[in-house]
Amino acid sequence: MSTDELRPIAWTGSALRVIDQTMLPGRLEHVDIATVDALIGAIRRLAVRGAPQLGVLGAIGVVIAMDEGVRQGWTDGRLEAAIDAIRAARPTAVNLAWGVDRVRPLMAEGRDAVLAAALAMVEDDERVNRAIGSHGADWILARVQRPVRVITHCNTGALATVAWGTALGIVRELHARGALGVVYVDETRPLLQGARLTAWELERDGIPYLVQADGAAASTILRGLVDVAIFGADRIAANGDVANKVGSLGVALACREAGIPCLSAAPVSTVDLATPTGDDIEIEMRGDDEVVAFGGVRVAPEGARAHNPAFDVTPARFITGLVTEHGVLAVAAGETPARVLGA
Amino acid sequence: MSTDELRPIAWTGSALRVIDQTMLPGRLEHVDIATVDALIGAIRRLAVRGAPQLGVLGAIGVVIAMDEGVRQGWTDGRLEAAIDAIRAARPTAVNLAWGVDRVRPLMAEGRDAVLAAALAMVEDDERVNRAIGSHGADWILARVQRPVRVITHCNTGALATVAWGTALGIVRELHARGALGVVYVDETRPLLQGARLTAWELERDGIPYLVQADGAAASTILRGLVDVAIFGADRIAANGDVANKVGSLGVALACREAGIPCLSAAPVSTVDLATPTGDDIEIEMRGDDEVVAFGGVRVAPEGARAHNPAFDVTPARFITGLVTEHGVLAVAAGETPARVLGA
Repeated sequence: MSTDELRPIAWTGSALRVIDQTMLPGRLEHVDIATVDALIGAIRRLAVRGAPQLGVLGAIGVVIAMDEGVRQGWTDGRLEAAIDAIRAARPTAVNLAWGVDRVRPLMAEGRDAVLAAALAMVEDDERVNRAIGSHGADWILARVQRPVRVITHCNTGALATVAWGTALGIVRELHARGALGVVYVDETRPLLQGARLTAWELERDGIPYLVQADGAAASTILRGLVDVAIFGADRIAANGDVANKVGSLGVALACREAGIPCLSAAPVSTVDLATPTGDDIEIEMRGDDEVVAFGGVRVAPEGARAHNPAFDVTPARFITGLVTEHGVLAVAAGETPARVLGA
Repeated sequence: MSTDELRPIAWTGSALRVIDQTMLPGRLEHVDIATVDALIGAIRRLAVRGAPQLGVLGAIGVVIAMDEGVRQGWTDGRLEAAIDAIRAARPTAVNLAWGVDRVRPLMAEGRDAVLAAALAMVEDDERVNRAIGSHGADWILARVQRPVRVITHCNTGALATVAWGTALGIVRELHARGALGVVYVDETRPLLQGARLTAWELERDGIPYLVQADGAAASTILRGLVDVAIFGADRIAANGDVANKVGSLGVALACREAGIPCLSAAPVSTVDLATPTGDDIEIEMRGDDEVVAFGGVRVAPEGARAHNPAFDVTPARFITGLVTEHGVLAVAAGETPARVLGA
């Protein structure tokens, strides 16, 4: 168990220093990002990832673009185009655009004002995560017997945020309160964020867990091995539909069948009131190679093509609770974000 | 496209010649099996696999044991113990024990009588598969618009039988009738029988398909991309509960939610009337390495343990149709195997 808290992103003064998550769990490698192209590349290959972290990266990305613009003598048009490119690097998570848009109006006040706002967002995100963890743990412990057995999908820990985590922040909080039994970690194909990243975070913190194939989730739930499912969110529509890593929908369906709660945990910045329902969320389609090959080794026959949606949409009626920094919305019972936040 | 039909097992006169399925799709390698230990090893590491194929292998295994017993001068007790070990090599699929038990009473008539019965079972299995394919295609085409879009899980083709296949036999029959659109092939972690074996069979036959992560199954179904799910069965309880490769249950849950049919295709020999319900089926738990490592490369951190059930149980109420060589039982509507076969 490690006692120091994991902080995956930092500002060096002239560059963004991040953990290259594609190297985990084999190697803990940091990389410094000081150009827009490097940032977009890191986002697209998922060296950095996680909806809340993408929000912060969007804000810091504006600083990186401004610094690069000064070095390269960019016109205003070139600079704005570079910032637009960061904003659109991945389409499904709303946080990336949210982070860019939050600091963009400050550009007139100068680079240091933008940087200060971006760094404040880093601190905010940690506070938000702690609040999510606390609200989620309170909600669960009021309803579920101890020790709590959790299933989770993808990675929603420190590596997906700036510290602590959202869904995994709730797990950490349950563990800190001595109320956690075990975490079933879906490996989360194709990119194995569960087996590689969530397992690494839990191993590091000494939290008991078991990794399983994604196909095992339904039977783990229906055989009564877990008490609650908790996953994150990449975009939450106004009606409460949740876009999250592909495979989340299957977890939610099994929870409904088993009669156990299914929670989505995310900062309010993940809610997009401009998106009426899940049908309006663009699902990022990724390349065949992630599915037909594995670690550079081809697993499917030559000629095989893949269907590789990165996300799926869980309808609001399956989301027992949406945990944000403000508390828990009973989405399946009708407390939609539009009704609560839109007023 | 290959025009010759795939036949994965053959009797050489002194040994069982099989395709080593762990080498596919990279290499098509045959291996000769002439000892009980080699047979059990091949079954356990899934070099040979598939419930119907295991039935035939159980029968031929008795011949292998008798031949080895003669060579090694085994006592009757030693021979019986060896046959019991074959029978118990994998616990979930009932077909293995069924195959052994079908020829064991013939041992008194001599080795050639056992061999003749075993080889007759090979021919029977192909006839059974053709009948399953025909019944399944008839049922689907009476209910589903063409071209039919199918989702399948694991491998149920020639590689899981002796030729043609069960669930994949229905797919082949739909294709032969010009009625198939596309097959979504769940990759089927942890051992990737879908990405490696089903994709290889479909590629070989020129049948259109897309490989996907298992976690994509629920959204593929709920987004309306498929018309019917078809998977196999490793053991079918008297009440119609179906044990099949882990992940099948999630496919069935999504079909129920989407309102599309979910079919299980298997020979009647897969029905075990001595097993009242799915709760009575032993689920084989396999080793951590299949999940935490991939092709010899560790993906989860050191210290990670896995939860690795090889199968799950789909309750009868989610099995719209059970396709056997005798026709289609409307299991979800109450036509349980016990009611139909047990009389």
